[in-house]
Amino acid sequence: MLERTISRIQPLDAEAAAAAQTRQNTLTKPPGSLGRLEELSVRLAGILGQPLPAIDDKVIVTMAGDHGVVEEGVSAYPQEVTSQMVLNFLGGGAAINALARHVGARVIVVDMGVKGDLPPHPDLLSKKVAPGTANIARGPAMTREQAIRSLEVGIEVVEAEIGRGLDIVGLGEMGIGNTTPSAAIAAAFTGEPPDLIAGRGTGVDDDGLVRKIKAIQAALAVNQPDPDDALDVLAKVGGFEIGGLAGVILGAAAHRKAVMVDGFISTAAAMVAVSLAPAAKPYLIAAHRSQEYGHGLMLDWLGLHPLIDLDMRLGEGTGAAIGISLAEAACKALAEMATFDEAGVSDKEE
Amino acid sequence: MLERTISRIQPLDAEAAAAAQTRQNTLTKPPGSLGRLEELSVRLAGILGQPLPAIDDKVIVTMAGDHGVVEEGVSAYPQEVTSQMVLNFLGGGAAINALARHVGARVIVVDMGVKGDLPPHPDLLSKKVAPGTANIARGPAMTREQAIRSLEVGIEVVEAEIGRGLDIVGLGEMGIGNTTPSAAIAAAFTGEPPDLIAGRGTGVDDDGLVRKIKAIQAALAVNQPDPDDALDVLAKVGGFEIGGLAGVILGAAAHRKAVMVDGFISTAAAMVAVSLAPAAKPYLIAAHRSQEYGHGLMLDWLGLHPLIDLDMRLGEGTGAAIGISLAEAACKALAEMATFDEAGVSDKEE
Repeated sequence: MLERTISRIQPLDAEAAAAAQTRQNTLTKPPGSLGRLEELSVRLAGILGQPLPAIDDKVIVTMAGDHGVVEEGVSAYPQEVTSQMVLNFLGGGAAINALARHVGARVIVVDMGVKGDLPPHPDLLSKKVAPGTANIARGPAMTREQAIRSLEVGIEVVEAEIGRGLDIVGLGEMGIGNTTPSAAIAAAFTGEPPDLIAGRGTGVDDDGLVRKIKAIQAALAVNQPDPDDALDVLAKVGGFEIGGLAGVILGAAAHRKAVMVDGFISTAAAMVAVSLAPAAKPYLIAAHRSQEYGHGLMLDWLGLHPLIDLDMRLGEGTGAAIGISLAEAACKALAEMATFDEAGVSDKEE
Repeated sequence: MLERTISRIQPLDAEAAAAAQTRQNTLTKPPGSLGRLEELSVRLAGILGQPLPAIDDKVIVTMAGDHGVVEEGVSAYPQEVTSQMVLNFLGGGAAINALARHVGARVIVVDMGVKGDLPPHPDLLSKKVAPGTANIARGPAMTREQAIRSLEVGIEVVEAEIGRGLDIVGLGEMGIGNTTPSAAIAAAFTGEPPDLIAGRGTGVDDDGLVRKIKAIQAALAVNQPDPDDALDVLAKVGGFEIGGLAGVILGAAAHRKAVMVDGFISTAAAMVAVSLAPAAKPYLIAAHRSQEYGHGLMLDWLGLHPLIDLDMRLGEGTGAAIGISLAEAACKALAEMATFDEAGVSDKEE
């Protein structure tokens, strides 16, 4: 299933993108004056294969998982917060709920590997690969089979939403400790030292940051993840929600849907996805630059230029929600604006 | 009326702002992790005088005027585009219409000083101070009385909208040639040379840019605007829509409403308003950094740090529309998120 999905990913639709660009130049504004909104509309035309791309159904997939590495003291919050926050998502009280409502997006909450049992809830997708990863500072996070399973769950989840009409998917996550495996993934792929990548996550103190960097160094030393084998990196130093989000990317790209990347953790997932399937890269749009230390380095490695920088560092898909609203704005400007001819406006003097 | 409005402007409500900040720290997220959205919610609490600020009624006031200085060849578009674009606004086909619909804002179109006669339209506010300014490269743009009149019209327009429920106003404008007086205003207040401020506006070519800089230099030399007398600056090198927007700022601040500044021209209006009434400054939020050359210098002079930078340079209120959506998002996150207690989520380990 994973290989079939990867093999289905096609290049962007150059014809649709060119048609969108041509139309942009006829609309009642100086050409290029909507800046990155114009670029975004053209990219979305290429992604969706529509000269006038429409973003009607917006979905944020928020995946949760726990991390054995929290026993190294890498997080400012206790591990039970992962499942507590899942319940908060289901109750509609988290930041992502407020922001998703604001932008008109649906939130899909997925248990990819939360440690405890979560009570059944009609809005919770229970897809637990395992009850939390093992401690990456001591050994691999998961088996290679579990890594593949997490990717395939992500593909299944996004394909189900595509069946319901999804045009764009925002990546969201929750997992106490998950900036640690994300930083380890970034270190593995970029070859940069952990102290240039790891940040304070949810707000760990100086001692905690030192413990976190040591845990990442240990994870790399103990596991020796192979940067040329993305499954190996995911299995050895990743997480179930990270694998799930990488799967969401692959599934979305295979079906020509747009992916709005959120912050540090979802960018690590994007690194896994793009390493597995370089063809998925043009389907990715970076919503924002996270305040988390190494995010810029990860975006650079992916060649992504984020839309906004609001000093956010929350995750959950909060940055992606804002990015999705900008994507919709870009498409609406392209579709709804009058041309110079239609509006009877004189064009530029040559 | 102008003086009465200025004297009514009060400091922000520190108590409401403090209450908003306190609540932010109890919400289910690491404190500060929503970054500038948190700051924005606190600022809006102080502006609106509400611990839980609500942004329900959003209005973009787009003011149009013509400029005698276009006879110096400073613009890439012919002067009739000003009135043609006003009709486009009224027909709903301009970028600001598409973006305002996207963010749920009303657009108010005001003729502050368009050169020709515009046909009556139920949605057009006809407040023409005069049919275009005089050529600032040869003499003053308008009389001091006209400058006061343009400010007072702005106050009247925003007060009428406040009567209809306005919580936040975005500044928009249209006026072929209006980056030239805006740059002259910025040069007058900052003392910086015109070639460090003037940009290509709607896309003037190299020769046009040289003509534009010369026109601004001439405007400053001929008129000698007094930077300590904002009315003098507005009258000598300003424009009717610029004065109108400065009046909108003063009127909004006097009634504790938030002002979302757009790009180059509305920032020039903000410089006029803040020079007349320094107390208005905290009511201003800068939506975006325009691609127009000297905008950063103007924002610095005002001490404003824009929310986004999407390489936009269109005006009309397009950047303000996006900023208004972010302001609303910030308030919704503050109001709608659950606290740690409410959600039963464990707080940070100390």
